[in-house]
Amino acid sequence: MSRDTAPLRVAMIGHGFMGAAHSQGWRTAPRFFDLPLRPEMQVLVGRSAEAVRAAADTWGWAETATDWRSVIERDDIDVVDIVTPGDSHAEIAIAALNAGKHVLCEKPLANSVDEAKAMTDAAARAADSGVMAMVGFTYRRVPAATLARDLVAAGRIGEVRQIRASYRQDWLSDADSPMTWRLDKARAGSGALGDIGAHAIDLAQFISGQRIAAVSGVLQTIVGERPLLAESRGLSGTASTERGTVTVDDLALFSARFESGVLGSFEASRFASGRKNSLRVEISGSTGAVAFDLEDLNSLQFFDATAPIETQGFTRILVTEPEHPYVAAWWPAGHTLGYEHGFSHQAKDFVEAISSKTQPRPSFADGLQVQRVLASVESSAADGSAWTTIDTDQKEVRS
Amino acid sequence: MSRDTAPLRVAMIGHGFMGAAHSQGWRTAPRFFDLPLRPEMQVLVGRSAEAVRAAADTWGWAETATDWRSVIERDDIDVVDIVTPGDSHAEIAIAALNAGKHVLCEKPLANSVDEAKAMTDAAARAADSGVMAMVGFTYRRVPAATLARDLVAAGRIGEVRQIRASYRQDWLSDADSPMTWRLDKARAGSGALGDIGAHAIDLAQFISGQRIAAVSGVLQTIVGERPLLAESRGLSGTASTERGTVTVDDLALFSARFESGVLGSFEASRFASGRKNSLRVEISGSTGAVAFDLEDLNSLQFFDATAPIETQGFTRILVTEPEHPYVAAWWPAGHTLGYEHGFSHQAKDFVEAISSKTQPRPSFADGLQVQRVLASVESSAADGSAWTTIDTDQKEVRS
Amino acid sequence: MSRDTAPLRVAMIGHGFMGAAHSQGWRTAPRFFDLPLRPEMQVLVGRSAEAVRAAADTWGWAETATDWRSVIERDDIDVVDIVTPGDSHAEIAIAALNAGKHVLCEKPLANSVDEAKAMTDAAARAADSGVMAMVGFTYRRVPAATLARDLVAAGRIGEVRQIRASYRQDWLSDADSPMTWRLDKARAGSGALGDIGAHAIDLAQFISGQRIAAVSGVLQTIVGERPLLAESRGLSGTASTERGTVTVDDLALFSARFESGVLGSFEASRFASGRKNSLRVEISGSTGAVAFDLEDLNSLQFFDATAPIETQGFTRILVTEPEHPYVAAWWPAGHTLGYEHGFSHQAKDFVEAISSKTQPRPSFADGLQVQRVLASVESSAADGSAWTTIDTDQKEVRS
Amino acid sequence: MSRDTAPLRVAMIGHGFMGAAHSQGWRTAPRFFDLPLRPEMQVLVGRSAEAVRAAADTWGWAETATDWRSVIERDDIDVVDIVTPGDSHAEIAIAALNAGKHVLCEKPLANSVDEAKAMTDAAARAADSGVMAMVGFTYRRVPAATLARDLVAAGRIGEVRQIRASYRQDWLSDADSPMTWRLDKARAGSGALGDIGAHAIDLAQFISGQRIAAVSGVLQTIVGERPLLAESRGLSGTASTERGTVTVDDLALFSARFESGVLGSFEASRFASGRKNSLRVEISGSTGAVAFDLEDLNSLQFFDATAPIETQGFTRILVTEPEHPYVAAWWPAGHTLGYEHGFSHQAKDFVEAISSKTQPRPSFADGLQVQRVLASVESSAADGSAWTTIDTDQKEVRS
Repeated sequence: MSRDTAPLRVAMIGHGFMGAAHSQGWRTAPRFFDLPLRPEMQVLVGRSAEAVRAAADTWGWAETATDWRSVIERDDIDVVDIVTPGDSHAEIAIAALNAGKHVLCEKPLANSVDEAKAMTDAAARAADSGVMAMVGFTYRRVPAATLARDLVAAGRIGEVRQIRASYRQDWLSDADSPMTWRLDKARAGSGALGDIGAHAIDLAQFISGQRIAAVSGVLQTIVGERPLLAESRGLSGTASTERGTVTVDDLALFSARFESGVLGSFEASRFASGRKNSLRVEISGSTGAVAFDLEDLNSLQFFDATAPIETQGFTRILVTEPEHPYVAAWWPAGHTLGYEHGFSHQAKDFVEAISSKTQPRPSFADGLQVQRVLASVESSAADGSAWTTIDTDQKEVRS
Repeated sequence: MSRDTAPLRVAMIGHGFMGAAHSQGWRTAPRFFDLPLRPEMQVLVGRSAEAVRAAADTWGWAETATDWRSVIERDDIDVVDIVTPGDSHAEIAIAALNAGKHVLCEKPLANSVDEAKAMTDAAARAADSGVMAMVGFTYRRVPAATLARDLVAAGRIGEVRQIRASYRQDWLSDADSPMTWRLDKARAGSGALGDIGAHAIDLAQFISGQRIAAVSGVLQTIVGERPLLAESRGLSGTASTERGTVTVDDLALFSARFESGVLGSFEASRFASGRKNSLRVEISGSTGAVAFDLEDLNSLQFFDATAPIETQGFTRILVTEPEHPYVAAWWPAGHTLGYEHGFSHQAKDFVEAISSKTQPRPSFADGLQVQRVLASVESSAADGSAWTTIDTDQKEVRS
Repeated sequence: MSRDTAPLRVAMIGHGFMGAAHSQGWRTAPRFFDLPLRPEMQVLVGRSAEAVRAAADTWGWAETATDWRSVIERDDIDVVDIVTPGDSHAEIAIAALNAGKHVLCEKPLANSVDEAKAMTDAAARAADSGVMAMVGFTYRRVPAATLARDLVAAGRIGEVRQIRASYRQDWLSDADSPMTWRLDKARAGSGALGDIGAHAIDLAQFISGQRIAAVSGVLQTIVGERPLLAESRGLSGTASTERGTVTVDDLALFSARFESGVLGSFEASRFASGRKNSLRVEISGSTGAVAFDLEDLNSLQFFDATAPIETQGFTRILVTEPEHPYVAAWWPAGHTLGYEHGFSHQAKDFVEAISSKTQPRPSFADGLQVQRVLASVESSAADGSAWTTIDTDQKEVRS
Repeated sequence: MSRDTAPLRVAMIGHGFMGAAHSQGWRTAPRFFDLPLRPEMQVLVGRSAEAVRAAADTWGWAETATDWRSVIERDDIDVVDIVTPGDSHAEIAIAALNAGKHVLCEKPLANSVDEAKAMTDAAARAADSGVMAMVGFTYRRVPAATLARDLVAAGRIGEVRQIRASYRQDWLSDADSPMTWRLDKARAGSGALGDIGAHAIDLAQFISGQRIAAVSGVLQTIVGERPLLAESRGLSGTASTERGTVTVDDLALFSARFESGVLGSFEASRFASGRKNSLRVEISGSTGAVAFDLEDLNSLQFFDATAPIETQGFTRILVTEPEHPYVAAWWPAGHTLGYEHGFSHQAKDFVEAISSKTQPRPSFADGLQVQRVLASVESSAADGSAWTTIDTDQKEVRS
């Protein structure tokens, strides 16, 4: 990237865990990829002046602010990157798009389908004047996941026959682990389904190139009451004897019928003992299969049924060759990447889309569709696992 | 086993693939285990005198017969081992039990719940006079599967939280692979669900120590028409241009609610490209997990959440130590077993149960319960995946 | 196998652990393979009449005897199968061959090169009159190992570049595990090198199709003294306070130069904690590689450098298809075999060689060559790891 | 890291592949770790003004320079980071240390033992005035490798019994891959041995806590001639018909005797087809084992022989918990790191050592010792694999 490359000034709203990840993406992408625009980490926005100042110092943002509304009006801001909790996404994103700013919004797109729909409409209007919007399903940009999509798209597994996706963690296995806001429906919106199931849905659709049309699901809260932390009473992190009620799902299981008629099975669990961050997608085709696991993200399992029978089997591709997606920018062949590299790839792809005025994916319409799947799973679960159809706007499908 | 050990004379009805496996079990078990009775491979029964003679020669049965009814009346027969197709199980088993013969019946117990119920009733009556009946879910007797059950039963994974089971094969992935009787509902009764899903159900219940109470499922025939073999016209195995209709399921997906309230997810697929014989069961508990895969049957994955955090992880136990179930009878530590050893373990366990007059497991009641789960999945699938309760006789539960 | 197939009557000398394995091979092979001769388990020979009688009952031998010399003279014996300790192999094998009996001799061929040489000479003479001799390196006959050899021979990995072989066990890791005869050079001849290193040598040569020409090695006794069992004083298996001296190697490491100039590395260890029976061979070629591990014996790892770069990787071939070596005789695709199946394959191959009057492999000359490699490693180790050439008779090479 | 943290101004000499990696380390470490000094990427030094300017822009260095001698004299430079080829390390490092700059020097410390000795002497003198020197064996700082060392040091595998290390790549497998400077002894100094074998040596010594005392080795150039690139004649990267001579080793095999008497085996290969970047170390102890593989760097295999026998096996620890070395600074549990994170850990550890005036490891003395092992392997190989003792200064041992 030459010194003369035009800048792309970013304001990031929010500074939790995702703020660290997005910062690393903005900071690192231009050091490895030859970008058409130079991202600048201009303003970090948060409600507490002190906290946002500390975060900006740690992560390297030039300025801080506490009022996002004034920031999105600034002429010297080109991109608004939203990493706040889901309940504020809609308001910020719509305002930023209306103000002519490109918007990168962390997943889930919103806490409700209505909000997501309004955001998608705003994104469609903004797109007419070259303003871009993208939602942050970064696991698509793990090289092995992108390779899986490429192999499916190239017909290397033939016709898709069956789809499986699961996202399994185990941090709630212990019944004595305390209540957190993530277990309160009023604040978190959803449990395992929305938090990690959303990733499984997006990744399965991305790799398979297929969209879910209907679902039949069941949700379960496995441990219904948990110790309340005594924090509110000025005691640090000690579990009290009082217990709070968990109001979100710990486990979501659902079957999906894709538009092509293919069936898929999905699981999102926070009780999968020993599975720490296991997002797995396996697609079976008529002449092969691909299988991805986020816990082993530098590799992809590929089965090629067109090989001679005596040497058929799952091949563990170490996805670290320059020929693999995104990899050439990094290290010599055989050197691995980690979780955070997806955020650099996201920054790169978004910058390139802005520069070329091409709609980036996953679009807000993609995010809305995931939201609709989540809502349909909840409806189905509330209705005895009855099959529930995903609403679709024809307009969205085209995006 | 001393020369003076009393004999236990076996008649086996049927001589397909399962006949070879059961023969290997009867032939081998007394060579490695010190049995209280000496099994003798006395009579092999089949409809074609010529074919049964050839099979008897190959497998080492002393005599042959073509009429099973006369065989089960013989005073010198103690055990009737049924390896015919499922539609004849009920008639033979009930007759044999009524004739006072111990009965080992290959799975599925029968092709319908009614038949299975009649068989279970006959077994209950026979048990009163010390005549034993057992159904052949041999995968329970793979040492790693038995070890998994033992670890769960001993509380090593704590309270069971979630159950997953799948049985995946890929022999139908090719849409041009021809019709067989297994794809004809009239003859096979069921497709992937009954053939391999039954194993997943039994093994998940066995390892978890839990019984399924209700299910919500979906079935799919992925490839609806397949080439007819030209056999009927005297041509050997060549695919013709005519196509036949597949009338069974290729894929079964269902969620299960166990009696404890725990949820489970199940899959049976003949379209899982690259998965040759992958029967997997994973049980998550409050303090650990076990995961078994039949394609790697000498090992068990075990997660112990009570270990120090820095050394937690899934342990790949090579289940080949003398301390492991069944293993001491075979080879020195570290030497592996194969698929067929389950049949020797089945023979051993059945002989011991007969000798000790103890009800062997899986009992006919266990087989009936699996049959009821299968029937309920089919009902649910026909009823839009509505949750369907498994009928239970209180009497059966006790067996 | 038809009832009219001519018999092949076997006498087995010895009845330790290897006796059980060979018995299982003789018993099972004709039940699965269509053999040209029908093996009959005729006489089991051992020094103690009582012990040999018990073993014969357990394993199913028709008769017993205590004097091997008279047995090998019997007209009704066709094959002599030797599973005694190594120090008696030469005497028995040479006498049996001279008596016109086909001989299967368990590895190691002998305890010294001189003995092995005399046996090989006897085998060469016997071969002139159609009498066959074979040594029992059964791991060659694990289907995945045979497949590895086939792939190398077919040029699927190109030109061989580098060879690695190791056999690792851990049963001596505990310094308090007691003395056994296996740790006494006078009785065992050698330690890890001869016991398990011999397998690594044979298998590496077999798969690569290359012979070792020279070696540079080092041996180590890691724990020099171990508790003596109090057995001799009439106490059962209790460790005493006295300690005995270990006089064999616990660990052998050596480099080898093959006749082609290719280098190889070898390890034999009884102190490899956690490795129970890990015989691994990896051959790197100019266009691919194969890697075998006995602890996972139903699979073979294969790397094909001629595949498109983006899908290259090690393929885990589940070696359970009918197209794979030996597999079609057993179970349907995807059903696994175990350790003991190699002994059935050995019996089958030996019977076929006898029937077709074709020299079976590994021949006594092959066994002698392994013995020479072992001796050269010991010489090299005694001489500061100096490179030591393997003696070769031109005559032997041709066999 | 507060805004008031004192700066630590770095000058980096060299800008090849390692320059990118070190830059990423300096850039990222202060964003995740709370460092006592704030590293500033002040000056990048290279011979070509244009090339160094482009690299500085890409990586984010504030200034550039072409004369390293003047840079090391600057008062506003605190640290000199050397990532030039090995033949210039000694001159730069000694000058920088004499000028009172802390020095981080990429491995190998030098191209000869004499140079490394002089550097180590300079480092010892500098240390007296609080000036620190460290050599860049970054693989020590992969969390799983550090955890392995911690487990060994804590006695979790008991007494060390045996050590294995290998570093395997395959980029030379193709005999038609062209000559490069890395295959020319005059420029590269050494082949696989020095380039990747050095890492295997350092890591094995680090994890085991043991030092090599003597070696017996063999080196081989597998493909002796390779196509010359036509570059010199103004043609871009096309292979010519002329061939050049490879003057370095493609493969190094050696046995090592550690100071404790423990034996180890080592391999460095550029012909290991299918192994892309496979640095493996396995340490067997009296009560356990650890096994690390750089191709799967987020995990560690751990065997605990003190666990109950029925659940013993290798545990695959996903080294992504906050309790694991370095991990807490990064992402939530279960999120993986990549190759480059070792460079951030290196920057962190070096900054902390400078701040606390504690000798960082690996010290120059550690680098010198590795250099001596490499030289001894070359001597041994030239002398028929004769055992060759590693020289040791008592003074160095203490460092």
